[in-house]
Amino acid sequence: MARSYVYETEAAWTGERRARVQSSGTPVLEVSSPPEFHGAAGVWTPETLFVASVNTCFVLTFLAIAQLSKLPIADLRVSAWGRLEKIEGAGYQITEIVIRPLLMIRSEADRERAERLLEKAERNCFISNSIKAVVRLEPEIIVSA
Amino acid sequence: MARSYVYETEAAWTGERRARVQSSGTPVLEVSSPPEFHGAAGVWTPETLFVASVNTCFVLTFLAIAQLSKLPIADLRVSAWGRLEKIEGAGYQITEIVIRPLLMIRSEADRERAERLLEKAERNCFISNSIKAVVRLEPEIIVSA
Repeated sequence: MARSYVYETEAAWTGERRARVQSSGTPVLEVSSPPEFHGAAGVWTPETLFVASVNTCFVLTFLAIAQLSKLPIADLRVSAWGRLEKIEGAGYQITEIVIRPLLMIRSEADRERAERLLEKAERNCFISNSIKAVVRLEPEIIVSA
Repeated sequence: MARSYVYETEAAWTGERRARVQSSGTPVLEVSSPPEFHGAAGVWTPETLFVASVNTCFVLTFLAIAQLSKLPIADLRVSAWGRLEKIEGAGYQITEIVIRPLLMIRSEADRERAERLLEKAERNCFISNSIKAVVRLEPEIIVSA
């Protein structure tokens, strides 16, 4: 398997402080700055795309690890938030990300293994490896009959 | 103005190696791993969301700077690509991002100022400040009558 892959996106200005962005064959996203930086509510922003990238990287990494480890999963929902913070002399930076998985498993007997696999997914998420922010995991595991 | 903002997203597993992700009030995105990592083509992935975040941060930062500097813009399209690379002992990481703005200005007299403002936008993009990758800018400026 190759050791290097390239991912491309195309953005176009659509007026004022708004743009469209797309990657090969994907749905087009409308993007603006967030409301607190003179943008609109209810659309994707660079900030939320960044957090979505970390969030979905965690989800997909965990799904791959759980499949390899044959862990039965009933459901998985993950919320993630990122803190954008002004650093003296360095401008704004995303300094902290918190990932909160809510994992539903089939059996209480799987709880410890599920915990370990969630932690492993956080360590192996390549987007987490690519950013400066401190990433914290706050997992919750529920047995769903 | 506050010095810290929080941005949140919610993801949910939708079967196999796929998920949905949303931020407050935004359209819902279908996300999977890319085809080379057992996923589907034509949908957003953590990799392309990451590059889209850098790309749109550059676009919106430049628009803000151009507006402050009263630079007339005829059009702006920006392609950006990111390299995902296996690092010995550290797994995969996005190591390099190239941002290629195609900026159309109204007058040849604005060219040097436009170049400086593009470079300033790259330096001031807070997503660029938040990642480990080396970010390179390859601008092209065209005068559009």
